[in-house]
This record gives sequence, C-alpha cells and structure tokens, in this order.
Amino acid sequence: MQMDSERNSRLRSALTNAGLDAVFCASPSEVLLLTGYWPIFANSIGVFTAGGDAFLFVPEDEHDLAAGTSSAQLIPYKPASLQKLTGAVQQLTEPIRQLINRLGLQHARIGLRLQLDVQPTSYAAMTQFRESLHQLLAQLAPDAALTACDTMLEQQKAIRTPRELALLKTAATVAAEAFAVAPGAIRPGLREAEVAAAIQHAFDASPAAEALDRSYGFFFCMSGPNSATAAAAYARTRQRRIQEGDLVMIHANTCADGLWTDITRTYTAGAPVPRHKEMHTAIHEARKAALDAVRPGVSARSIDAAARSVMKAHGFGAAFKHATGHGVGFAAADPDALPRIHPCSPDTLQPGMTFNVEPAAYFDGYGGMRHCDVVAVSAHGATVLTDF
Amino acid sequence: MQMDSERNSRLRSALTNAGLDAVFCASPSEVLLLTGYWPIFANSIGVFTAGGDAFLFVPEDEHDLAAGTSSAQLIPYKPASLQKLTGAVQQLTEPIRQLINRLGLQHARIGLRLQLDVQPTSYAAMTQFRESLHQLLAQLAPDAALTACDTMLEQQKAIRTPRELALLKTAATVAAEAFAVAPGAIRPGLREAEVAAAIQHAFDASPAAEALDRSYGFFFCMSGPNSATAAAAYARTRQRRIQEGDLVMIHANTCADGLWTDITRTYTAGAPVPRHKEMHTAIHEARKAALDAVRPGVSARSIDAAARSVMKAHGFGAAFKHATGHGVGFAAADPDALPRIHPCSPDTLQPGMTFNVEPAAYFDGYGGMRHCDVVAVSAHGATVLTDF
Repeated sequence: MQMDSERNSRLRSALTNAGLDAVFCASPSEVLLLTGYWPIFANSIGVFTAGGDAFLFVPEDEHDLAAGTSSAQLIPYKPASLQKLTGAVQQLTEPIRQLINRLGLQHARIGLRLQLDVQPTSYAAMTQFRESLHQLLAQLAPDAALTACDTMLEQQKAIRTPRELALLKTAATVAAEAFAVAPGAIRPGLREAEVAAAIQHAFDASPAAEALDRSYGFFFCMSGPNSATAAAAYARTRQRRIQEGDLVMIHANTCADGLWTDITRTYTAGAPVPRHKEMHTAIHEARKAALDAVRPGVSARSIDAAARSVMKAHGFGAAFKHATGHGVGFAAADPDALPRIHPCSPDTLQPGMTFNVEPAAYFDGYGGMRHCDVVAVSAHGATVLTDF
Repeated sequence: MQMDSERNSRLRSALTNAGLDAVFCASPSEVLLLTGYWPIFANSIGVFTAGGDAFLFVPEDEHDLAAGTSSAQLIPYKPASLQKLTGAVQQLTEPIRQLINRLGLQHARIGLRLQLDVQPTSYAAMTQFRESLHQLLAQLAPDAALTACDTMLEQQKAIRTPRELALLKTAATVAAEAFAVAPGAIRPGLREAEVAAAIQHAFDASPAAEALDRSYGFFFCMSGPNSATAAAAYARTRQRRIQEGDLVMIHANTCADGLWTDITRTYTAGAPVPRHKEMHTAIHEARKAALDAVRPGVSARSIDAAARSVMKAHGFGAAFKHATGHGVGFAAADPDALPRIHPCSPDTLQPGMTFNVEPAAYFDGYGGMRHCDVVAVSAHGATVLTDF
C-alpha cells in the first residue's frame, strides 16, 4: 500500500514537537493512525518513530489485510499455537525487544496512551492490550522514559488527511443508502427492532461497501417516549410498537475501514404533526446557523453558541440537553474527541477537522428529535459529508 | 432486581481465598460478573467486597437499566455536563474516594484486572477505563495493596450460575431463529454480504429478544476459499459471489444482556458435494466424541484429544488447525477463556462451565467447514445449548 505521506509528515512533526523518539500504540484507532491499518482482533501494535518509520506487529492471520492498507514495516507474529498455551504478550516480548534494540530506544522518550479514551468497536470482541503494552515496555526498556502522549494523539486524530477523508466520505455514502430506506421502513404497528433491522439490512447488503475491507454499521430505532432517552450517551433499540404520530429517531454509527460516521435522522410515523414541524424548524435553523459559522480559526464554542441560541429563540433551550457536537472520524461516539463543539470548549476549528453537528430537542415522556450530520472544515467553511 | 445469591456466595468465597478485601473492575464483562449489570458505554465501575456487598458506579443515563438487572448499591454519576468540560475520571474521583473511606479500604488488599484480556463488545464504541481505574485507585488509596486478580476473575467467569445459564439459553434461542433462515438465504449468485445481511435481519427482528434489554448479534458469511480463512481468530464477510458447490460458513457471536454465544454452521451452496459429505461425517463424529467425553472432573485436553483423534482417523488431522474450544459466556471469542479445550490445557471440567466445541477442517484455496456449538457441563455430561 502507498504511504499516506501527509499523515507521515504530520506525525513526524508531532513527535519532534513533543520531544518523543517513538510512539507505541495498541488501541485499534491509534494503530490505524500510526500505520494505516485498522486491526480486527485488537492484538496489533503500531510504532512510529521521530524519523518517520512505521512498524506494525500484526497477528499472522491479519497479515494480508494489513499489507493491503499499511505501508508500515510488518512484523507478523503468532498469538496462538497448538503446540503450547501462549498469548500475544508472550509471543510479542522478543520481537518488541528486538525492535527496541534495532531502533536504539533503550534510553529513549517513548510516547504511550495513558488516559481514558473511547474506542470504536473493531470486532465482536476486542483484545484489551493497552495496559499490557505499558507493562511490557516498562519491562523491556526500563531506562526509557515512558511518557503520556494522549494530547498529541488526540490532536493528530482530529484532522483528516485526504486519504482518511476519502474513507470517511465512503462511509457516509454507504450509510446514505441505508437511510434512504428509512422513511418506507417506519410504519405504525411495527416494533422498533423490526424497523432498525430493515435499515440495518439495507446497510449490510449494500454493494457500495465493495471498495472496503470492512464496512460495519450499528443502526438503532427509538420511537415515541423512547426517542426522548436518546439524549443519553448511547442509543438503544427496544421492542416497543410504533404508534401513529410518534417521533421515530434512527441513529447510526457506521464505519469504512476504521473511519466512523455518527448520523441521526428523525421522522414522524404516519401523518404530519404540528409540534414536530416546530421542532423540525428550530433544529434545521440551528443546524444552518452552526454550519454557517464554521470556518478555520473560529472557536468550537462559537459553533455551539450559534446552534444553541437558535434553539433558545424557539423556546427549545432546555430541551437541547447536550453539546452541539464532537470530533468524529477515528472516533464513533466519543464526546471528548476534538474538536469539542461544547459551550466551554477551548478548541479552535482547523481545516480537515471532522465533527458532528447534532442539534436536538428532547421531552421526557413525549419524544425527541435530533438531526446529526458529519461535517468537515474546509478553507471556506463547512462541507456536510452526510448531505442527504 | 433480586440478587444472584449463588454468584454472591461464590465471589465472597473467592475473595476470601485470594486474601482480597475488595475487587474493583471497569471492563463490562467483569462489571456484569460483580454486579449483574452489563454496562453499555463501559464507563461503569463494579465493586465487590469480601463481606459480599456489591456497588456499582453507573452513569446517570444507564441508571434505570442497571436498576433493572443489578442488586448492587447503585452510585449514579454524571460523566458529562453542559456547564463544564469534564469526564468520567474527574466525576468519579470523589465518589470513589468516599466509598474507599466508607468501606475502610485505605490499607486493604484490592484486586484489579491487570493482564491482557479479550472483552466482548458492549456498544458501537467502548470507554477504555481499566488503566485509568488503576491510576485512580493508586492515587486515592496509596497505602492499599493493588493486586492482580486476573486468575480469580477468569475462574469466576468460567462457571455459570443458574441465572447466567438462563440468559445464555435465551441467547441461544434467539440465535437459533436466525440460523433457521440460513439454508434458504444461501443461493449461488448472491454476495456473501447479502447472505449475512439476510440472517442478521432475522436475528435483529426476532421477537424472541423481547425478554432482553439488549440483544446483539454479529453474523458473518464466508464462502468457497474464503471459508478456509475462518481458521483465523476472527470471521470476515466479503463481497464474493457464492458459486454452485461452494462451502458456505455462517459464523455468529450473539448475546443476551452480556452472556455470549459462539456458533458456526456450514452449508453447501446448491447440490450436495461428496467431499463435503466426508468432511461433515468426520466433523460430526469428532463433535460426538468430544461431547461424549464431557463430564465433571475430566481434563479439558481429553476433550480436545477425543475430537482430534477422530479428525486424524479421517485424514483431517492437519486440516483441524485450532483448538477444539474455549470458554464462552462472559466471553464471545476469547481463546484464553476457561476452560481451554486445547491439547496443552491444564484445565479440568466442572459443572456449570460453558464452552464451545468447534471441530473443523480448512483447506487453503478450497474451503473450510466448522460446526461450533455452545455446551454446558452438567452433573452427567454435556448439555448442548445450541442444539439445532
């Protein structure tokens, strides 16, 4: 695979600025950042050096996938064997020791992720490798300075390269096909689970995913009073039967080879309802105000303020219970991903940042409406990647 | 929710035997073990004391769900706020300090998960809290002895209580409905993604999930040569078009409120193929040999040997590339979950253990066949939970 030279160059500068000789990461989104490969079973380790070299310790059974997307030097290993009981840590100890020696990292400053983060799902089960990697490096390079580089990684993950943006656009295209069936799938009398399943099916069967190694999507349906609970940090589909006049919220997180979307649309089951029209007007005016305010150099909190003031003007200030958005791309649903489009955010918008804009109004016991788009900051303003 | 008194009693004994005053866990499957609640966003903390008291720090937006399934004392907290930028660690620092003081744990032996593990997916994105919890306890209880209790947790997770077994049976029932549509969904000319989507749809829409708060399933389809790659630690659906005479493998991990299955069935697309019949005969004889060997007190490796000797006798020794099974329940796809049904396993079968039995034969470039069931050890032998 051809190197993402833009990412390589940014990482090199970032390591130099942080005074780091190398970074080691085990969490899938960060292995993707450092190497261009998004691990499946989360037992790969990505390494990036201040000199711009990338290495990827990868289980043998993911080697071919990694070779197709990563330009890092691949170091395959066998996490399991029929001849002995072993595991990833045991099998990686010697290869990591060799790389440390080869790169002369015994007394280096080595960056690691050490603080809490939110990691998108890479498979039905994921290896929890981060703390073991920390322990392993402490053992293999006892004289190295193991240093938290959380902020540097978050800043790197906040800004897309052209290659990453292309993947995110593909993710949005596949999701759009699924959302296209939503209006027809929502009917009074159906259970939320049936509606979510129909839209999920359109996503899973989509031929638009053909260009991808892995196209994952999680679709949720919340109707009537359940849609009011979508103000939570998570979505949940239940077995409730949809009734005429319900608000019906469809929420999705979808991904294209590790780049994630965060998308919500809200519909009315059956005939139009005047109250929904009022909510819709406010939310779409708030969305437009937020999008119109986007340009490089402005504060992220001014985007939140733009949306929030419209919601307040329409009498929906208290109903808009969460921030206007957060970083989306390497993250699926992380409220702390940069830029935080939050009333207290210190972040500044920069070209290539991607985030969601999700004005919403929630009324306990009645219902909720949210419209959530993924947006990229370009030189001239906002580009909506989920323009459907 | 009524307490799972069996689990409470086992945990109490285990803590006493390990000389631990309390255990703190952040990974969802272990919070489930300690408290009966399977967290969604993975920012809950479960605590269990040697005296048998359970506590659950839970984000406010998961409180009601937790109250429905956990008998622990719930300590809700707000991981986010519109008034300030904050997060789970900041918001939990004071509540955890208070609990440490209240329980007198300042000089206690506190158990933590410290080694690598494989965690089933609880949502589209999961908080990585384990290392932060470790840091937080080191800060809040500097005189406590923070002790690895990985082995104790693995042993506890290996043996089901009646309540956990009932959940696992429900998971198997919902999965069975989905697999019932597989023979009709597999047709030459369809893409693997279309077949997987059809079976996934049957799962997602199933009314059998009605008794559950959360019913998740991941279904995969691998056909022809792609089915040979299923010897890997993971499954992957591609866009390949199924051809007449292909082996078509359907693999699933499904869950009922945190208890997971691991199920595989293999079909032939179109008319029967003699070579598949030979593979089928060997695999089903190996399965029967393994099941017949199951009883409390026998070694896990004898179960592997029983299956493997049949595969060898049929000439499929080299084609059976992985262990015969591993623990399934709190784990979805963890090869190290107890009991390890592996040629070198030191584990002994005990009543209430649940694991998979997955004899298989893989031929690179041609295809693979696997039949994977979830099995429980009862007083008299094996009970197949996926008997369809």
